Amino acid sequence: AVHLGDVDAAIREADRAIHQNGAKGVLIYNHVDGIPLDDKRFRPFFAAMAEWGRPIWLHPTRTAAAVKDYASEEKSRFEMWWCFGWPYDTSVAMARLVFDGLFDRHPNLDIITHHMGGMIPFFDGRVDAGLEVLGARTSDEDYSGILSSLKKPHIEYFKQFHGDTAMFGATTGVKCGLEFFGPSKVVFATDSPLGPIKKTFDGVSAMELEPGTREAIFYGNAARLLRL
Amino acid sequence: AVHLGDVDAAIREADRAIHQNGAKGVLIYNHVDGIPLDDKRFRPFFAAMAEWGRPIWLHPTRTAAAVKDYASEEKSRFEMWWCFGWPYDTSVAMARLVFDGLFDRHPNLDIITHHMGGMIPFFDGRVDAGLEVLGARTSDEDYSGILSSLKKPHIEYFKQFHGDTAMFGATTGVKCGLEFFGPSKVVFATDSPLGPIKKTFDGVSAMELEPGTREAIFYGNAARLLRL
Repeated sequence: AVHLGDVDAAIREADRAIHQNGAKGVLIYNHVDGIPLDDKRFRPFFAAMAEWGRPIWLHPTRTAAAVKDYASEEKSRFEMWWCFGWPYDTSVAMARLVFDGLFDRHPNLDIITHHMGGMIPFFDGRVDAGLEVLGARTSDEDYSGILSSLKKPHIEYFKQFHGDTAMFGATTGVKCGLEFFGPSKVVFATDSPLGPIKKTFDGVSAMELEPGTREAIFYGNAARLLRL
Repeated sequence: AVHLGDVDAAIREADRAIHQNGAKGVLIYNHVDGIPLDDKRFRPFFAAMAEWGRPIWLHPTRTAAAVKDYASEEKSRFEMWWCFGWPYDTSVAMARLVFDGLFDRHPNLDIITHHMGGMIPFFDGRVDAGLEVLGARTSDEDYSGILSSLKKPHIEYFKQFHGDTAMFGATTGVKCGLEFFGPSKVVFATDSPLGPIKKTFDGVSAMELEPGTREAIFYGNAARLLRL
């Protein structure tokens, strides 16, 4: 993991880790001291990772105190910040990178999103048709030029991310994510050692999948991404 | 819709709407002026709806200004509050009602959740195994007795909600929600007239479904819920 608080230093550290120490990629969090990843100051980092052809892992980092769920309470209670707040934050980070044109600048950049792409696969309709009118729900900022500034329909960029299977088993969400991203974009259990690996391994092993898909999820996609 | 700011008045209004004016159920929002629905003051409303055997629609209500996505910004930008914030809020409301024992008090209460149950179907693994250790991620409140106070495994209560198909088409999320809730708990397009009805209607019409499931989604479930 690198901290992007000092972007130049982060790039140097990523360079050292990858090219001297054999790191396969770099993990970042979905905000940097409260600053979103689409802030222009972070662009050189994404450019470097794209140039090196190395993947970025995108991990959430919200705490209970960071965002409260109800105005009448002082913090997020009942661990909702973790259960739903983490995937929410991942989803927002993904959307903002897409809207900022990241994948037009770096079409081959690989980003592995935690928890199977957050809320994107399940809410592909909200993301696609729902955000097609981006700007219609906003009066104090002009978003009308964002989607037309992109080279492709915005939903296509969301499919360029990878999703990992760290979902506590081969849940309905794993199937949904596999359908959204496609078999070449889903990678197994990169949340190790924290996630319940065995449950997910056994579950994915037992899933009814097209020929080659299981091998891709368990090994092939990661081998390609990590240049193994 | 009733506003629960004055609970007694809301119950009287729901009573009048249902028993004098023929309303089939009542819509509420997933917080009341910032107060969560599991606050004890709202219990008489849920008790009345359960006693009358009438469904509650649960709709989100977050604005851009209500919750900011990044500490460095003043509001939620790029309409993320709507796209992902609404399903997040629905998910938190559902979890808090479950943890508060709502369905142990009212096992037959029907609640129709907007957007196919928010994040619950996709993140059923996070909800189930992930929250099985509820309390382990928290040191300033004691959540250790919550799950053991419930009569059933907590994931079972989440399946007692209904989900609607207001997902901008027959998306991967509709399939995922159908798998999670089961065919008797999914109802068509209750977001009319705002949602894109035709796209969802055509999409669900074209889905490969078990015999009887399409009829249940389009008509049978609603007829049972609304006593048509």
